[in-house]
Amino acid sequence: MTYDLIVIGAGPGGFDAAVAGAEKGLKVALVEKKLLGGTCLNWGCIPTKLWLGATTAIDELHNQAKMKVASGEVSIAFPALQARVQKHLAGTRKAMGAQLKKLGIDLLEGIGTLKGTGEISVATKDGKITATYKDLIIATGSQPLFFPGLEPDGECILDSNMFLGVEEMPSSLIVVGAGFIGIEMAQVAHRMGAKVTLIDAMDRVAPLEDPEVSKALQSTFKRWKWDVLLEKRVAGVQTIDGKGVLTLDNRDKIEADLILVAVGRGPVTGGMALAEAGVERQFNKIEVDENLQAAPNIYAIGDVNGIIQLAHAASHQAHYVVSRITGKTDLPYESGPVPSVLYGAPEVMRVGLTENEAFLSDYETTETSKAQLAANPMAQAHAATQGFVKVVWSNGTVVGITAVGHDVSRLCVAATMIVQQAWTAKDIHKTIFPHPSLDESLLMALKAERKKTA
Amino acid sequence: MTYDLIVIGAGPGGFDAAVAGAEKGLKVALVEKKLLGGTCLNWGCIPTKLWLGATTAIDELHNQAKMKVASGEVSIAFPALQARVQKHLAGTRKAMGAQLKKLGIDLLEGIGTLKGTGEISVATKDGKITATYKDLIIATGSQPLFFPGLEPDGECILDSNMFLGVEEMPSSLIVVGAGFIGIEMAQVAHRMGAKVTLIDAMDRVAPLEDPEVSKALQSTFKRWKWDVLLEKRVAGVQTIDGKGVLTLDNRDKIEADLILVAVGRGPVTGGMALAEAGVERQFNKIEVDENLQAAPNIYAIGDVNGIIQLAHAASHQAHYVVSRITGKTDLPYESGPVPSVLYGAPEVMRVGLTENEAFLSDYETTETSKAQLAANPMAQAHAATQGFVKVVWSNGTVVGITAVGHDVSRLCVAATMIVQQAWTAKDIHKTIFPHPSLDESLLMALKAERKKTA
Repeated sequence: MTYDLIVIGAGPGGFDAAVAGAEKGLKVALVEKKLLGGTCLNWGCIPTKLWLGATTAIDELHNQAKMKVASGEVSIAFPALQARVQKHLAGTRKAMGAQLKKLGIDLLEGIGTLKGTGEISVATKDGKITATYKDLIIATGSQPLFFPGLEPDGECILDSNMFLGVEEMPSSLIVVGAGFIGIEMAQVAHRMGAKVTLIDAMDRVAPLEDPEVSKALQSTFKRWKWDVLLEKRVAGVQTIDGKGVLTLDNRDKIEADLILVAVGRGPVTGGMALAEAGVERQFNKIEVDENLQAAPNIYAIGDVNGIIQLAHAASHQAHYVVSRITGKTDLPYESGPVPSVLYGAPEVMRVGLTENEAFLSDYETTETSKAQLAANPMAQAHAATQGFVKVVWSNGTVVGITAVGHDVSRLCVAATMIVQQAWTAKDIHKTIFPHPSLDESLLMALKAERKKTA
Repeated sequence: MTYDLIVIGAGPGGFDAAVAGAEKGLKVALVEKKLLGGTCLNWGCIPTKLWLGATTAIDELHNQAKMKVASGEVSIAFPALQARVQKHLAGTRKAMGAQLKKLGIDLLEGIGTLKGTGEISVATKDGKITATYKDLIIATGSQPLFFPGLEPDGECILDSNMFLGVEEMPSSLIVVGAGFIGIEMAQVAHRMGAKVTLIDAMDRVAPLEDPEVSKALQSTFKRWKWDVLLEKRVAGVQTIDGKGVLTLDNRDKIEADLILVAVGRGPVTGGMALAEAGVERQFNKIEVDENLQAAPNIYAIGDVNGIIQLAHAASHQAHYVVSRITGKTDLPYESGPVPSVLYGAPEVMRVGLTENEAFLSDYETTETSKAQLAANPMAQAHAATQGFVKVVWSNGTVVGITAVGHDVSRLCVAATMIVQQAWTAKDIHKTIFPHPSLDESLLMALKAERKKTA
């Protein structure tokens, strides 16, 4: 079979690339070894959000109960929740399949292997298929990574994919790795009553974020009575007598019903014979140039190219590459600011530079301005007043915005536009923010007195 | 006493005008007859949001329970909630008072009366004060309006101010007037178990909104088993034997524990001797020119000038007038798009033109594009999938955005910026929206196929 475009991997990047290609009139095949939607839909963003959504009432009740304004009890029928998640995912995959069909995109189910120039073979359950392409997009995503000794065993030691499939929530959970994935999942377990231990080798949780954000998260986790163990090295994890046992490098042991290992994710590039087509890897990432190109007529987008591990970034790259191969652009890839969000309560959002990044790139003009959520009536209404919004300025221009606290993800799109449009002081009064709204805390932060970073 | 600027009314417009004036170096007095913060803080937006926030868990639990994912019960300690509201309001007023003091603004407590040119008198509890001004800003706001026969009696017939002060929630409530105020308050009563009857003379609820928004709200209220009585004229309301009794013009009677009359609000302009200073009124509103000026050196901002009844609009007007009197601008007042929000669940947001308004101004090029929330994973996560986002285009440019459904207020600031920046098709792909997010439904609506309005 002959295609204008073959895409390997049907996650957010690959699926969007296939759809965009077909919409532009290309004859497209999409190769997927497992499930439409990839990690994001099936083992990542979406199931976690369904868990968080289903348990929101617990968090809201907890906050009001602390104020003695509400009382009661909310219990989760976890098997029903898991069934609902699976039903939702299956429904979404079905809708995706229908969209492919409608657009005349061939779905080739199996592992794709690169051959010489312009050809791939796909090992499907009905045998091997060979197909040629004018352009190839590799969007094979990422998978959980493990340090030696931290590998999941599927019993009491789980990776994030396995954890999303548990039949019941543990009553105690150790999470190794205090990044967004570990924190979101731990929050759900916490809401459902689990005793949580969070452990990381770094000196703070969410180490990619502004240190003040990490501090705010840590103070929340402390209020929740989590054990947060920082600067601890884990020697290994094992299932022993139906319990997860974690051994620190000083030989101390910690035990829980389950141990979730979420120490990072790495590109999926194995078994595809990439080198056959001249695609090079560095530290397992596919190397791409400024056009996201990996070899002649071969592009790599999304987690696999190692630029950034976010679904919406993959999707944005997909649209760029399709524009490029259909001759709509010959400019190098520019993402603009890419927002990131931790969901739950508290939430974290960040877009553009952190204070530290801004300072490193221009230490003379970096300033920050800040607003506390405690001053916001919507945060007060939800009895969730911890947190802040912080604006990073460089040379009088907004270069980054981050926030932590109740519902701050809602600031994300406006913040992205503000960073993208490089607002200066004179832009702040242009837009009317609704009152009352949590969004006003962003306006307050933009207006607040600026402090020079030293 | 002599001031550069005297402001009458300490609601969002007046307070912000006083603060902005003092920050620009003016000697300012602020006149308030009741409480700092005015209606918005004390009898409007803020207490309602605290009620809605405190009862969010009930709504979230209800939605998940319908999916059989959660069960339980949440009860509200209403006296504790009311005490918390009062504590919050008092705390906010105290902070406002401290800000006035810090800025050297004199607070004159009492009713201000205009005299001849450049002078007012204030009847304080310690006697009459006379003060002169270079510029005067009238920001006296609005108050509930009543048709004859619909006046509150403070027993079972309440206006919105009184309703916010009830000691317990009624088990049945009739709300006369299906605007935002009535709907938000009725929702809180509904969450706390009240049987709600909503009655309006118009043929739909939220009659200022897009008819499709009204329809979506009505279908939610129907699911909640509210009695929604439309195109009904109320002859009168009375307290009879400890019950609220409503009589329709066909003599039918409906009874409930309480009746909330929320048929509209009108400017507060009485008792101030406005005519003495040449300030004219039309239908009780203070008439202003394109500079928000009512008479030489006298301006009127906020609800009292009848332009729009929204706190953030009043505040925006305040900043304009202070810029004007301090010589920073001599341009006429331009608000830009002013967003409006109905809070609760579902929420409603609107900014810019409705489809109908756009069609009336340019019937040849009006189009709409739409996305359903059912397709959004965050709406799915909260089991609240009813609703949509609708974009109104005129001549290929976004001129309005409205949405109804779970949490759609979060689209409001980005939508306001998009309308203000008059996005066209080519702008849509510039900004990366985070995935997953409810905000993506706005992106979907922007990208969706457009339908010509006929």
